[in-house]
Amino acid sequence: MKSLAEARDILFNRFNGVEAKGVEMLPVPEAVRRILAEPVTARTSSPGFHSAAMDGIAVRAANTFGAHENAPKIFIANQDAFYVNTGHVLPSGTDAVIMIENIQELEDGKIRIEAPAFPWQNVRKIGEDIVATELLFPRNHQITPFCIGALLSGGIFSVPVRKKPLIAVIPTGSELVDWRFTDKKELEPGQVFESNSYVLMAMAEALGARSKRYETRTDDIEIIKAAAAEAAGGEADMVLILGGSSAGSRDYAKHVISELGEILLHGVTMMPGKPIVLGVIEGKPVFGIPGYPVSAILAFEQFVGALICRMLGQPETERQQLQVELSRKVASKLGVEEFLRVKLGEVGGRVVATPLSRGAGTITSLTRADGIIRIPNHIEGLKEQVPVTAELLKPLSHIRKTIVSVGSHDNTLDVLADELRARFGDLTLSSSHVGSMGGIMAVKKGGCHIAGTHLLDTTDGSYNVSYIKKHLSAVPVRLIHLVLRDQGLMVPAGNPKSVCGIADLCRKDIRFINRQAGSGTRILLDFKLNQLQISPDRVCGYDNEEFTHMSVAAGILSGAADVGLGIMAAANALGLDFIPVVTEQYDLIIPAAYFDSVPIQRLLETISADSFKQRVAALGGYNTENTGREIKL
Amino acid sequence: MKSLAEARDILFNRFNGVEAKGVEMLPVPEAVRRILAEPVTARTSSPGFHSAAMDGIAVRAANTFGAHENAPKIFIANQDAFYVNTGHVLPSGTDAVIMIENIQELEDGKIRIEAPAFPWQNVRKIGEDIVATELLFPRNHQITPFCIGALLSGGIFSVPVRKKPLIAVIPTGSELVDWRFTDKKELEPGQVFESNSYVLMAMAEALGARSKRYETRTDDIEIIKAAAAEAAGGEADMVLILGGSSAGSRDYAKHVISELGEILLHGVTMMPGKPIVLGVIEGKPVFGIPGYPVSAILAFEQFVGALICRMLGQPETERQQLQVELSRKVASKLGVEEFLRVKLGEVGGRVVATPLSRGAGTITSLTRADGIIRIPNHIEGLKEQVPVTAELLKPLSHIRKTIVSVGSHDNTLDVLADELRARFGDLTLSSSHVGSMGGIMAVKKGGCHIAGTHLLDTTDGSYNVSYIKKHLSAVPVRLIHLVLRDQGLMVPAGNPKSVCGIADLCRKDIRFINRQAGSGTRILLDFKLNQLQISPDRVCGYDNEEFTHMSVAAGILSGAADVGLGIMAAANALGLDFIPVVTEQYDLIIPAAYFDSVPIQRLLETISADSFKQRVAALGGYNTENTGREIKL
Repeated sequence: MKSLAEARDILFNRFNGVEAKGVEMLPVPEAVRRILAEPVTARTSSPGFHSAAMDGIAVRAANTFGAHENAPKIFIANQDAFYVNTGHVLPSGTDAVIMIENIQELEDGKIRIEAPAFPWQNVRKIGEDIVATELLFPRNHQITPFCIGALLSGGIFSVPVRKKPLIAVIPTGSELVDWRFTDKKELEPGQVFESNSYVLMAMAEALGARSKRYETRTDDIEIIKAAAAEAAGGEADMVLILGGSSAGSRDYAKHVISELGEILLHGVTMMPGKPIVLGVIEGKPVFGIPGYPVSAILAFEQFVGALICRMLGQPETERQQLQVELSRKVASKLGVEEFLRVKLGEVGGRVVATPLSRGAGTITSLTRADGIIRIPNHIEGLKEQVPVTAELLKPLSHIRKTIVSVGSHDNTLDVLADELRARFGDLTLSSSHVGSMGGIMAVKKGGCHIAGTHLLDTTDGSYNVSYIKKHLSAVPVRLIHLVLRDQGLMVPAGNPKSVCGIADLCRKDIRFINRQAGSGTRILLDFKLNQLQISPDRVCGYDNEEFTHMSVAAGILSGAADVGLGIMAAANALGLDFIPVVTEQYDLIIPAAYFDSVPIQRLLETISADSFKQRVAALGGYNTENTGREIKL
Repeated sequence: MKSLAEARDILFNRFNGVEAKGVEMLPVPEAVRRILAEPVTARTSSPGFHSAAMDGIAVRAANTFGAHENAPKIFIANQDAFYVNTGHVLPSGTDAVIMIENIQELEDGKIRIEAPAFPWQNVRKIGEDIVATELLFPRNHQITPFCIGALLSGGIFSVPVRKKPLIAVIPTGSELVDWRFTDKKELEPGQVFESNSYVLMAMAEALGARSKRYETRTDDIEIIKAAAAEAAGGEADMVLILGGSSAGSRDYAKHVISELGEILLHGVTMMPGKPIVLGVIEGKPVFGIPGYPVSAILAFEQFVGALICRMLGQPETERQQLQVELSRKVASKLGVEEFLRVKLGEVGGRVVATPLSRGAGTITSLTRADGIIRIPNHIEGLKEQVPVTAELLKPLSHIRKTIVSVGSHDNTLDVLADELRARFGDLTLSSSHVGSMGGIMAVKKGGCHIAGTHLLDTTDGSYNVSYIKKHLSAVPVRLIHLVLRDQGLMVPAGNPKSVCGIADLCRKDIRFINRQAGSGTRILLDFKLNQLQISPDRVCGYDNEEFTHMSVAAGILSGAADVGLGIMAAANALGLDFIPVVTEQYDLIIPAAYFDSVPIQRLLETISADSFKQRVAALGGYNTENTGREIKL
């Protein structure tokens, strides 16, 4: 296996100097974003004549010399002075324009001036902007909207641009379902909506290529081979075979390429993106693209996208770089270059990076990311709060206007993010879900603007306040109540075992599925069991722990358990029934240092607005009576 | 007149909360770059089932506990262990996958393992990426290629996006010629190709709007009024009236808007862009856009573009900022915010900014610019070599890979720029034309990588070397010969006065037009006159000075003079005849510090290539025999 740098060298050396094939002439206004295939020189000068740059009178400068307040000079209109407006041709014999504000109009068309004009004053000379025959743009120049102005002004109405390279995309995989052909739009277990082809085609098009999608091929090497041969034999400039997400039995791209052509490389020490295959069929670059979406995207960027840019004579697309600090340390494998997706936000003058899911299968780790941190091959990981470079996926101002939320997840945060975006187009709420205690720790370390928590004090049934006093004594904070929410028992649809409440958990015919120790929900369960004087060892499955509401719900859906404790949203997501049993308090901790900032004040304004409360109420399972009220600490 | 900030406030307050009208549903793959009109939540979870994350066997983890090298556990295929590939549904009753590499296959379908599996090992759990009902993207989110993956995976096949705002564009001006209707494609004096409408439409489209162009209206207030009324009364969301480049008689936009609606503002203390008009007709924003191209573009960005972004719920387009140093001081008017266009290049670790033409009519000052420096209202100018912020028009890497050339202009530099770009797609040659001595001064101050000079030593007829010894004693440099070029006499086509050579300049019937003192061409003329023992006072027009080859040529074309000295390219540009009289040497000075850098070596490689020499020879008037040779200093 090669390193990313070695693998790129192998590809670029093999296809060194390969240019996009063909040239097309386009009318200038249609050529924006296209690449010039040839240098373009001006046909006409601009201006094409000496012209007035101001409204006034055109004169011969020499005739004005000596004019003075005490010795004015008199000109006669249409004889030795000519009224002109901006843009007018300078009349023959004149070489200067005196502004209309600086002349005195007398009777009989006489004009008095009291100061001399210097030659070419207020005149735009021929060729001042563009000189006929001069180079307007070299070949490989990308046309911008501004360029249209220079081209048309220089008398150029159509330009030779490189044809867009054609990228053939062949999705493969028997598990894939095409959304266009889905009547029921529901999947059978094992089926997945095919999306990589559409993502990569959009990426190719953003780089100035066009793409052709082949219908999805099932996992049959002969079928895939036929498609690859057709694509490579046709007009395509490159061929992508999608699928084969690992080195197992479904890895057909490698076999197809080696049978039809030549393998350059299989496997690169990058993560995600490792199982990419680089090859050649009929002299054309052919890529075996990994099946996991993040692998597919990163491999595409490093190889396919980079090659498209080269074919078009363009430098590779570049992302702005920024020094950031990780909110927690990240271990990484030696010998692998990892592309870590992170959320970014400016907290207290530092840009804090919170790592997202590192799985290659998690497309949302890219759509949620604000940046990517590359962890080089020779590094075993990155430390917390040490400066490191991130490549930005969003503009810097977006990151500066992001409210960083770290803590427990609740669906009302989604509604809040949407309402905030709707009211204030430039503000973003970015939430990382690390649990209530994780949020408190983030506040302590200065890693967030707000933290959502629902921590029950089992000694008195109160929420959050005692935890803040214990853990955040050194950090002045404010506490804003967001919602009361129902936690409840999730059971299969129809509630086949007629579960009514917590007391049922000790029934012999009931298998429970629990949350991990330390989670807010676990604390809540233990509190409730204690109230009912039910000993945990009487609950069958008490030791069966899951880490998220959703995992508990999934366990029930799959039949592995009969009941679990969680929020209504998780039950709704998987079509489970929900029996509300406890109401808990979910609040936002806000460091006092940020409380009066414009973004936080706008957030609080949004929280207190009726539209937010109405939408939260509509979710079901929430009480918004005191939403937005500050809780005394 | 209002400041830019005040004027923007007036506009945004008046149109506060104005959103793009209407929503359209688009298939997800067609929605890239569009803006969500509503929040989008996932319909299905992804994965929709527990699935194998590796190729191997699926087992119940509890059954593996205690497995050890010395106490292996045996499983039986299809009974308590099931072969799965990546992506397969986890068989019922199993909760872990053991990688195929870590099992031993025995006979009769027996499988031996020597280590326990922990629950959910190598399993992608249901909802790991996307949980049904969760918020995928809030409203006003711009769809990226990555988003396609999340949307399709979440079972969303079409999305509600904001309709593109429609911008009506009405060009006005009797002097304007539309390139589409130009048969001869030649202009009469006073005519100009209309280009602003196409530039601004392309800018609007880049921001996510669409545009409708009205045919050009002549300078007649009733005709313009009718067009504006039609546009404002129709489906357009905004109306732009182009033209009226100053406050003179052609300034119709203001009158039209005040007659049909209301003027919010006329004139902003920005430069270029000052004469913009902001108004309202039928509740819609209407803009009077100045006629000079740079004014039009900058006014568009600050007002029209900014409002388009707001209508789409987007932050304003933002340019990367960079600390740069001006290569020379720039005076600026108090009370005016100037947008100074600059070329940028990294020289010796500093990014040097060279100001381009400041005229509002010079579109090439934008197409050539790498950045814009804003000089605020309250500043009288910027000093040389003091850090100042530039907004980048090109990516940073482009600026880092730019060879900065400052000095005398020669057309072979255009050819060189094109050849360099063709050979090395990521290298750019950026030339500023400040004359030979200006180039030497730029080398002295560390402001360039190369300087083109043609300075004649009149004591011995040699070029450049003595000037380098005199002015650059403190800076080690190398000198590379570029070309020998003809300077000659430019005369009207057909040479009506039968000029043959320098000796003719003292003829009584000949009016000469000269270059400014200190220019290489002036030094050359004086040297030649001296050789012929002609006293300058015998040359009629000797004191008539121009600052560029092109101005001299224009003077001859206009009939103001009969002959001038200059390069063949200037004569060719205006269709003049050219009589070669002198061959001069044009060389490149390269500071030794940069000589061995990759960009300079690639430049030298390009200069020495046959393709460059052939193209230069084809220009006419050049000798490339020693092109690329180093000259000993």
